[in-house]
Amino acid sequence: MVAERLEGRVVSDAIATRVSERIASLPIAPNLVFVRVGEDPASVSYVRSKSRLAQRVGLRTRTLVLAADTDQGTLEHTIRELNRDDDVDGILVQLPLPAPLDEAPVLVLIDPDKDVDGFHPINVGKLWSGLDGLVPCTPLGILAILDHYGVPLEGARVTVVGRSNLVGKPVAALCLRRHATVTLAHSRTRDLGASVRAADIVIAAVGRAGLVGADMVRPGATVIDVGVSRVDGRIVGDVAPEVWDVAARVTPMPGGTGLVTVAMVIQNTLRAARRRRGWA
Amino acid sequence: MVAERLEGRVVSDAIATRVSERIASLPIAPNLVFVRVGEDPASVSYVRSKSRLAQRVGLRTRTLVLAADTDQGTLEHTIRELNRDDDVDGILVQLPLPAPLDEAPVLVLIDPDKDVDGFHPINVGKLWSGLDGLVPCTPLGILAILDHYGVPLEGARVTVVGRSNLVGKPVAALCLRRHATVTLAHSRTRDLGASVRAADIVIAAVGRAGLVGADMVRPGATVIDVGVSRVDGRIVGDVAPEVWDVAARVTPMPGGTGLVTVAMVIQNTLRAARRRRGWA
Repeated sequence: MVAERLEGRVVSDAIATRVSERIASLPIAPNLVFVRVGEDPASVSYVRSKSRLAQRVGLRTRTLVLAADTDQGTLEHTIRELNRDDDVDGILVQLPLPAPLDEAPVLVLIDPDKDVDGFHPINVGKLWSGLDGLVPCTPLGILAILDHYGVPLEGARVTVVGRSNLVGKPVAALCLRRHATVTLAHSRTRDLGASVRAADIVIAAVGRAGLVGADMVRPGATVIDVGVSRVDGRIVGDVAPEVWDVAARVTPMPGGTGLVTVAMVIQNTLRAARRRRGWA
Repeated sequence: MVAERLEGRVVSDAIATRVSERIASLPIAPNLVFVRVGEDPASVSYVRSKSRLAQRVGLRTRTLVLAADTDQGTLEHTIRELNRDDDVDGILVQLPLPAPLDEAPVLVLIDPDKDVDGFHPINVGKLWSGLDGLVPCTPLGILAILDHYGVPLEGARVTVVGRSNLVGKPVAALCLRRHATVTLAHSRTRDLGASVRAADIVIAAVGRAGLVGADMVRPGATVIDVGVSRVDGRIVGDVAPEVWDVAARVTPMPGGTGLVTVAMVIQNTLRAARRRRGWA
């Protein structure tokens, strides 16, 4: 274990402190509403940790829990009500939704100015067009980790493994905006090792345990692990343990990117409230 | 000159033939309106060639010419009128606009369903989110050239040089959607040669004459030239002449991507009309 450990907790705490100071200075605490459908244990746990941090930093927050058999119309009606409620600053629909609910029409329905997950196509388009919008939390968290630990992006070669709408594509956009040279690799990439070995910064966001092996990583590289898998009851990432002997810096899993994602939800809520309420 | 010449005219003619056949089968010809501000010679020439092709394939088309000193409000009023006109299927505002006009608010104003240039943020967001929207013409044209000449994208390594909203970023999205491994390189890229040499397909869209040299290109690569510069009164591309001795396939400049971009304007107009009017 020679690599530096990029601690999610350290970055998350720094963000939480900054956000809570700003919230204390506002005329009213921003209001974040979680929408959870059903009782999927991972969803319950994610919403709980986001909600706890939100309360800790002084946001107002509540969680609407809808039954697992809620129909599409009822869910969409709930979103419309939250859109209309002028005292709601952020709306976060926890994904994935239980079948047969359809996510795409729900994400498009959320008021883009309350879309603290940044998944609405208009926010995606703003991100790629260089315009000011709300940006997904996990990608923002990855950049916060790199910035906190002083890993430069400008001119760096970044290889993103995984091209999801939640992580891979938006983090590529953010790295590009910060003047990195960005490669997007994925399941159809031939010779994934060559793409990863070329990188100063590797961002692994696939969800396949140990996909990124030590032989793929350039000595001295920074490796960000986003993938989550469960192996023999343990949470493991996309990055194999041996990578710690080769890389200069690695995020642990758990204890890395996930914690910072949660912090970015509260930062995005603050940001959404400031934009929408016209606060400086 | 050993490389195969990827002729823009051949691809453009094939598209024009297909589009004109489809138009002939429609109840009414789709209606494309160009908005040109001022008399910049390049803009005059681009609009003229798009308009001629539109007429040749049977579109209805007209060009609104506004004086170079048109103010922002008048231009935006013009766009709103075209949005409201139910008989207008496509609106194309020729860029760049003369100073001090501001492009961003104009592009956001165009009805996304009539946005045949595909620059509206909602269309950009749909492109990156895997949703069905209108896609910029030059990137579509690049894919049409690769498809016409049978250059496979799935699993190919594509390096895009240049990260503009008009070409670099959207063509990266299209190549990714077709399962290529995509690298976005640009002015801040260190060792551009290494990024380009790794590519099976190079897309050069910077506008710096001869930026991509023979020493940067892998033997057997396909090289797509999008950059346009004027050197000693001649139009030249980003790709140096010596690249023809190394690459397997190259688009000429002029005579390559530009012609196919024009064809994609008419194809996008047909597509916009079919979507908006509910034609099959």
